[in-house]
Amino acid sequence: MDGGTTSTAHPAPAPAGRSALNPHPDRLLPSDPAVRAIARRLYDSVRDLPLISPHGHVDPALLAANPAFTDPASLLVTPDHYVTRLLHANGVPLNELGLPDREGAPVAEPREVWRAFCTHWHHFLGTASRQWIESELFDVLGVREQPCADNADELYDQLVAELAKPAMRPRALFESFNIAVLATTDDPADDLRHHRELAADPEWSGRVVPTFRPDRYLDATSGEWPRALERLAEASGVETDSYRGLVRALEVRREHFRANGATATDHSAPDPEMAFLPEAEAERLFHEVRDGRAGPEGARLLSRQLLGENARMSSEDGMVMALHTGSCRNHHPRTFARYGADTGHDIPVRTEFTRALRPMLERFGTHPRFQTVVFTLDETVFSRELAPLAGFYPTVYLGAPWWFLDAPRAMRRFRDAVTETAGFHRTSGFIDDTRGFCSIPARHDTARRVDAGHLAGLVAEHVLGEDDAAEVLRDLNDGSPRRAFRL
Amino acid sequence: MDGGTTSTAHPAPAPAGRSALNPHPDRLLPSDPAVRAIARRLYDSVRDLPLISPHGHVDPALLAANPAFTDPASLLVTPDHYVTRLLHANGVPLNELGLPDREGAPVAEPREVWRAFCTHWHHFLGTASRQWIESELFDVLGVREQPCADNADELYDQLVAELAKPAMRPRALFESFNIAVLATTDDPADDLRHHRELAADPEWSGRVVPTFRPDRYLDATSGEWPRALERLAEASGVETDSYRGLVRALEVRREHFRANGATATDHSAPDPEMAFLPEAEAERLFHEVRDGRAGPEGARLLSRQLLGENARMSSEDGMVMALHTGSCRNHHPRTFARYGADTGHDIPVRTEFTRALRPMLERFGTHPRFQTVVFTLDETVFSRELAPLAGFYPTVYLGAPWWFLDAPRAMRRFRDAVTETAGFHRTSGFIDDTRGFCSIPARHDTARRVDAGHLAGLVAEHVLGEDDAAEVLRDLNDGSPRRAFRL
Amino acid sequence: MDGGTTSTAHPAPAPAGRSALNPHPDRLLPSDPAVRAIARRLYDSVRDLPLISPHGHVDPALLAANPAFTDPASLLVTPDHYVTRLLHANGVPLNELGLPDREGAPVAEPREVWRAFCTHWHHFLGTASRQWIESELFDVLGVREQPCADNADELYDQLVAELAKPAMRPRALFESFNIAVLATTDDPADDLRHHRELAADPEWSGRVVPTFRPDRYLDATSGEWPRALERLAEASGVETDSYRGLVRALEVRREHFRANGATATDHSAPDPEMAFLPEAEAERLFHEVRDGRAGPEGARLLSRQLLGENARMSSEDGMVMALHTGSCRNHHPRTFARYGADTGHDIPVRTEFTRALRPMLERFGTHPRFQTVVFTLDETVFSRELAPLAGFYPTVYLGAPWWFLDAPRAMRRFRDAVTETAGFHRTSGFIDDTRGFCSIPARHDTARRVDAGHLAGLVAEHVLGEDDAAEVLRDLNDGSPRRAFRL
Repeated sequence: MDGGTTSTAHPAPAPAGRSALNPHPDRLLPSDPAVRAIARRLYDSVRDLPLISPHGHVDPALLAANPAFTDPASLLVTPDHYVTRLLHANGVPLNELGLPDREGAPVAEPREVWRAFCTHWHHFLGTASRQWIESELFDVLGVREQPCADNADELYDQLVAELAKPAMRPRALFESFNIAVLATTDDPADDLRHHRELAADPEWSGRVVPTFRPDRYLDATSGEWPRALERLAEASGVETDSYRGLVRALEVRREHFRANGATATDHSAPDPEMAFLPEAEAERLFHEVRDGRAGPEGARLLSRQLLGENARMSSEDGMVMALHTGSCRNHHPRTFARYGADTGHDIPVRTEFTRALRPMLERFGTHPRFQTVVFTLDETVFSRELAPLAGFYPTVYLGAPWWFLDAPRAMRRFRDAVTETAGFHRTSGFIDDTRGFCSIPARHDTARRVDAGHLAGLVAEHVLGEDDAAEVLRDLNDGSPRRAFRL
Repeated sequence: MDGGTTSTAHPAPAPAGRSALNPHPDRLLPSDPAVRAIARRLYDSVRDLPLISPHGHVDPALLAANPAFTDPASLLVTPDHYVTRLLHANGVPLNELGLPDREGAPVAEPREVWRAFCTHWHHFLGTASRQWIESELFDVLGVREQPCADNADELYDQLVAELAKPAMRPRALFESFNIAVLATTDDPADDLRHHRELAADPEWSGRVVPTFRPDRYLDATSGEWPRALERLAEASGVETDSYRGLVRALEVRREHFRANGATATDHSAPDPEMAFLPEAEAERLFHEVRDGRAGPEGARLLSRQLLGENARMSSEDGMVMALHTGSCRNHHPRTFARYGADTGHDIPVRTEFTRALRPMLERFGTHPRFQTVVFTLDETVFSRELAPLAGFYPTVYLGAPWWFLDAPRAMRRFRDAVTETAGFHRTSGFIDDTRGFCSIPARHDTARRVDAGHLAGLVAEHVLGEDDAAEVLRDLNDGSPRRAFRL
Repeated sequence: MDGGTTSTAHPAPAPAGRSALNPHPDRLLPSDPAVRAIARRLYDSVRDLPLISPHGHVDPALLAANPAFTDPASLLVTPDHYVTRLLHANGVPLNELGLPDREGAPVAEPREVWRAFCTHWHHFLGTASRQWIESELFDVLGVREQPCADNADELYDQLVAELAKPAMRPRALFESFNIAVLATTDDPADDLRHHRELAADPEWSGRVVPTFRPDRYLDATSGEWPRALERLAEASGVETDSYRGLVRALEVRREHFRANGATATDHSAPDPEMAFLPEAEAERLFHEVRDGRAGPEGARLLSRQLLGENARMSSEDGMVMALHTGSCRNHHPRTFARYGADTGHDIPVRTEFTRALRPMLERFGTHPRFQTVVFTLDETVFSRELAPLAGFYPTVYLGAPWWFLDAPRAMRRFRDAVTETAGFHRTSGFIDDTRGFCSIPARHDTARRVDAGHLAGLVAEHVLGEDDAAEVLRDLNDGSPRRAFRL
């Protein structure tokens, strides 16, 4: 007797045939009729507000060059690691999703990728990605059928045609999406050419600002670090062969970013710990690490020192320090070797903030120019650490749910966990953090629905009045992100 | 003045007298009328599906020998540590619940045990155990009154008579419970006689499969380990006086289990860490541990190495590796000394998976034959670690809520925490994990109600359609456990 | 271009003008009409029960001397770190809230403090503090308008006049609040004069009991410890220059407290770990720490040993050991230097109980006289550690949500997390832990509403009957705290 070794003997049921795609106007609002009525009024009062996107990964070249999108697979599937990871989990190798394999497996053509996506679409039931993509397909791309194996080719052709229209170019979408501010995420060595092109373009009036993301220059544990320092020296015109030089080079690039509209820096260290060594000690450590005499502990300490140095710079130049920590990057080494970073296997880890942030807050916690926004992938710190910190320090904003937590039920848990301790005004407002340009409105819309529902629940329980709720909701979509990111 | 030293001055209120036991047909479904209507339809569509029980602790001898149950105390109270632990917390010593005391305290007779249970039944209000036992009493045993001090003796007599009926024998119940597959948990040295008897019995058509649970042979930190190795050598016919021998003996027994229908192995290590030493190093470590030269750290490393070795075996023989980790066993040494293991004081601890599973997943995470189902007692990892892992690795299934978390509200939190990241199809389906044979239908019924309620909530919020919800629910009760455990 | 460095460019919207303060009679009850109807009946059945307050920070001198409160700022703002911390986070320095600054910043007058509070009142929307203060203002102080910048002076004058009335004196309020028992928190060196005055006062019939809080005598890591030992020697008449002497001195003071009505001790160690060294070793360690030869690890070990010694004492004198652990005290050193302790920057940290409590429970877990109530600021341990512990050990009560968790939604999460494992009778009942005397009824009322709502939800889902729910709710407000604290 064989115990069986195949998972496909009992496949998850795919839909029998075609079915309508028709997102309900009240989706994600509370189902209780009385609460829904309140939620609907609150949602209606903010649904058409301009979008403020203080953190995301849209390529500024997209808006500068304004090329047409070519097909739905390259737009919605291949570049979105939220999508590829779940397809991979359900048995589709990454090369069949259009990712180039360094080991040479054949890379699927967009049409094949789209077929794989449609065939496995039912695995997304209940996920946040399903919500966004349904909205994108319906609202932005005009699709009226749920993707499935049967209609994959038909949809593909329909979407290729749709994407060729002028109204579907990035700049036209930027306008129709009603984006008030879009912050990109940029390498300190970037010359910000695209941002300058946009700023200088008389036909372009949108606000697109860069964000200073110096991870690779701070991560002294990486084998790429020496090469990164060279690039930074080149970009800044400052030698980076000393600690003092590296710090100065970073300062020069921050100035460059600020001159081009940046208001914030962004950091994705493994954890939020920072070090504040005396300068002579930092200098010595820098040379030990550079010369390979410091070991992994020394390299980690230098990385933390450099992160702390950025906090100090923020207290001087007033750029908001956004902290995105707590992910174990590239969890599966073989997938990383074949497909590179950001391919769906960054897995969160437990993260500690109370003690980790203390040395930094000891220095800058009540500093008049310093400001930080703290994000987490570890929900347990919402009520235990981040709400109490943001409920005392005037410099600490509590970052909205991020990445895996950027989903309706997780967003509700966030508000439930933090509001009673920190109120609403110490939270950052929504960030979309997206690589998918067309998902921006759907993601903000989700947050607006969830926050409207949360506030409606409080109104229905007589915790606050509907007028107050409406004012809070408006602020979460306008004042909050502007304050938190100094936009 | 005496501050008072007795807890019983203000006893928790016991019910004044008798009251009806009458589980409501809509129990555990959402209370909102519109959502309940959806939930009821969904629940009705799966309530009578056959039960698949891929993990539990029913003794196969029970079905092979088919003896009558003698009395309600030995059936429902004494062997169920969920029940005895809460009675103990509320002041009833374990010997008064029928557990033999190695220090010689008098052991209560079943009728006395039953009286104690009935007298303290009100302490179970709101607990998951109360739910199951109410269903068992009502649906299986025909009881129509809540147990209380007043009716204890009457109920006892009634139940003794009931249990004597032929319809109450294990095999008859197995059939009336509509069990499609029942997996037991078995020692690798077990000859699986009862499983073979059942398979060979022409009057028996049920599917009862063993599960390979090698804990005691892998736990090199235990004083019992040397004796366990001897037993394994005997059972396998392979010398276990070397690492290579021990590994081979385990492989031989796995083959034996697979030949008798096993599809899975089960592991209850303290944490999920595994080691993958080179074979020569493992061999050296084995001898150091055996000879008492390795210390506790060395013994722990060997245990992790042996767990890793089982992962390797799974990648070869295709048996699914179920991981049940994160419990501090036998927390109260004196109770352990008097009453032995599994007596209600295994207490969960914080557990880490992202980093712990990485070395194993580096090797087998995308292996075509390997598969694991990961369970936890630490809810915090649902959204942070397990959903992201199961949302990328095709070999990782997310285990359903287990043990303390196998309760209605905890099950809801589980679905809330994982669905948005991993969807439904990467979860394992319900496991009852029970030692109480008669609780099997009640436990599965609870899971069906809770999942129906969860899905109804999503339908009511227009996150998915009712047709999709029904298909998901059917799959959770059929395809999911079959896929996850390769049944 | 300047990225902007000021947070006030987009201030959170303050209300345009005056609005009514009118707490809804059904506030905090579930909004579903059918569930609310049940909740209302349950709440009504306990709303007027006498209050039992087994843990809080009311100064007994307040009741002994019975002075009039002078103004709303000194009553509601300056001494309440829940209030000052959130005002501080929203930009109001602590000296402007009436806290004396050791560095000499001018301290605001009460009227100015009140103005700052009113101007920033909208930042409290959605917080637990807002709930309590609204109730206090409305029910106790007769205010009928929400505080705002416009009415600050008017309200101030109105409240100064109100507070001058005889009915607003502490003793009169104690009676109108219907307090059955009030436990204070007291220093072991305290002579308990005020408690004795009250007990001896023929015009006073309230029950006010002290609680033995020996933190400063157990914390050998503090620079204040040697001075504390001197004070203890003085108070006890026992030399504290040896371990044996210190232990004896503590025992003597415990006797004194018990003779004056105390039933419990209270401990706010950083974590719940205890040590149980042989006496000779403890004695040696004591001298090493005293003489500065032990280092911080030695001092910490001695602190844990002294906490363990208090557990041993509890097993002998029957005083309940309340554990309030898991806070990183005085997180911002500069604020601590300027304003002292309890000024809003005690930040919770992750806390472990399963392993930490094991050595103590090994000794006293089933001891007939020992009893402990375990509180936490780390919600993750509710389902994982505390419910399982309280669900086995008859000596362990699960402390109600405390401090940051003492808020409606957090209280619901608590019941959801623990009830299925531990039931209701192993929980402690509500503790208000307040420094604000006038907030006592509002806080208990919140707990009654939330528990009524939780139980109503269970009734509506047919998990338990309404009669059972009513009995549970009554017990939570009477029997539970009396049992847990042996009152």
